[in-house]
Amino acid sequence: MTHTNDAESLSQRVEVRRTMTGLDYMQKVLRGELPPIPMAELIEFKLVEVSEGYAVFTIEPHERYYNGLGIVHGGLAATLLDSAMGCAINTMATVGRVFTTLEMNINYIRPLKRETGEVRCEASLVHVGDHIATAKGRIVDRDGKLYAHGTTTCVVFRP
Amino acid sequence: MTHTNDAESLSQRVEVRRTMTGLDYMQKVLRGELPPIPMAELIEFKLVEVSEGYAVFTIEPHERYYNGLGIVHGGLAATLLDSAMGCAINTMATVGRVFTTLEMNINYIRPLKRETGEVRCEASLVHVGDHIATAKGRIVDRDGKLYAHGTTTCVVFRP
Amino acid sequence: MTHTNDAESLSQRVEVRRTMTGLDYMQKVLRGELPPIPMAELIEFKLVEVSEGYAVFTIEPHERYYNGLGIVHGGLAATLLDSAMGCAINTMATVGRVFTTLEMNINYIRPLKRETGEVRCEASLVHVGDHIATAKGRIVDRDGKLYAHGTTTCVVFRP
Amino acid sequence: MTHTNDAESLSQRVEVRRTMTGLDYMQKVLRGELPPIPMAELIEFKLVEVSEGYAVFTIEPHERYYNGLGIVHGGLAATLLDSAMGCAINTMATVGRVFTTLEMNINYIRPLKRETGEVRCEASLVHVGDHIATAKGRIVDRDGKLYAHGTTTCVVFRP
Repeated sequence: MTHTNDAESLSQRVEVRRTMTGLDYMQKVLRGELPPIPMAELIEFKLVEVSEGYAVFTIEPHERYYNGLGIVHGGLAATLLDSAMGCAINTMATVGRVFTTLEMNINYIRPLKRETGEVRCEASLVHVGDHIATAKGRIVDRDGKLYAHGTTTCVVFRP
Repeated sequence: MTHTNDAESLSQRVEVRRTMTGLDYMQKVLRGELPPIPMAELIEFKLVEVSEGYAVFTIEPHERYYNGLGIVHGGLAATLLDSAMGCAINTMATVGRVFTTLEMNINYIRPLKRETGEVRCEASLVHVGDHIATAKGRIVDRDGKLYAHGTTTCVVFRP
Repeated sequence: MTHTNDAESLSQRVEVRRTMTGLDYMQKVLRGELPPIPMAELIEFKLVEVSEGYAVFTIEPHERYYNGLGIVHGGLAATLLDSAMGCAINTMATVGRVFTTLEMNINYIRPLKRETGEVRCEASLVHVGDHIATAKGRIVDRDGKLYAHGTTTCVVFRP
Repeated sequence: MTHTNDAESLSQRVEVRRTMTGLDYMQKVLRGELPPIPMAELIEFKLVEVSEGYAVFTIEPHERYYNGLGIVHGGLAATLLDSAMGCAINTMATVGRVFTTLEMNINYIRPLKRETGEVRCEASLVHVGDHIATAKGRIVDRDGKLYAHGTTTCVVFRP
């Protein structure tokens, strides 16, 4: 598979996901055997770790993510947390099952700026049931300083 | 002011914001007298209405916003809601005051897809106090069908 | 049925609920044909209005609800909002179906005190699907002044 | 001080709280040198542990907390979580300062029932700043099984 994200490869990708567990799928993304998802390409965040019930993404805050206040837009932290918490939950998905976000809440602790340098968004599973799962996540810099944290509820997706 | 978003123009922009009310500032953005914020340029969403306690952004869902499930990433709705709810609150900010997001929560009702067509993210103020304000928002399509809704708490920002 | 809440009458009550729609059931509570739920008796809040997608409870803030700060404990607003939002959603439940709370979030605007006098907790449905529903609610005094607001997600309960 | 909660002793209590740190005050409640707060007496939950950034309450689920579905009302978990998370934050309050709840969100994992037996609501500080603090909490039974979890934002209270 070439690393493009046109309509055809996107729908192939959804099919590929259905033939494997969530963890297998994400490990393929991690190893570069599947391309990053389109939103990760657009915003340039990267999956760097994934295991059962756990996922980490990284990003370099840059001025192109700024709002009008000279700090990174709150949507960036939300996008990272949704990615990492959703992945942490989907590592528990058996073949053919996919969890999608039902609700998410985020607490903003400190503003992200270019000077912050690379940050990690770490998420871990809290609970997984038959149809519903919850996870928590946080964004920290290299020194472990906290920028945002959140929780999510996901539900099995019936397309 | 040219419509670039380099470091210098970004810090000028923050200064400009400090000399006017939140509503005046956003009306300048609406009329194109100030450039869109960087995050809005990157993701391509657009302020289309702003008045006291109210703001609306629009976006055309596109495959570049997709996650791996063949639907738009939850971070997009979060980014739109944070923008619209934050603007609705900042329309109440007097000269020199700026509200920033303290927490946000989002409920996802239906997936956004390319076929959805343009959606509106409408937000309105719920309460504004001296230091803290809350707002609510929702994302609807042309027929008024609901895709996501949320609430936020903002706090006066002390840079 | 006598208005007691012993173990037997509680389990009868659950059976009764299963034989009727959510709206029919709550209208029986409203008219006093079914006793208030135990938690409503303990805390003394009262269902005063219910219709399709809408429910209102009232309470008189009293010192017995206080925390250590000379104001009403945040758990009271949470209890009222969970009741009213859950009822607003359950008015849409067909015979034999029951929605239960999956998540709830609350924003506290002003402290409730004895001097506040009777407050209303009004809730209305936002969206109802096959398995999942969301609602919003708010607590206001006689002058319409806002004390708290919130949203909830409920899911069909499988006992 | 006798363990009553009339208006006079309640306002004395608020004064007492202002003369000590949050941690000193809660340790006095823990040791029985100050009475439980009124809401804890009404609902019968109990502070059993408190230290810097940490607090635990316990309760025995009973039918008097039930809703109409044969399970404990969601307001009970909300009341416990608000208590424990608020206490965890207030252990960090210096003399004369008090944090109060600005927002709270709760995820419900399993229903509480009489058969559940005593549960613990454990909360710990996530972040404390000059004016704003966040905490997280969870409700577990004797076997560590999870029933609910949540997060909160508190703000310094100006009465």
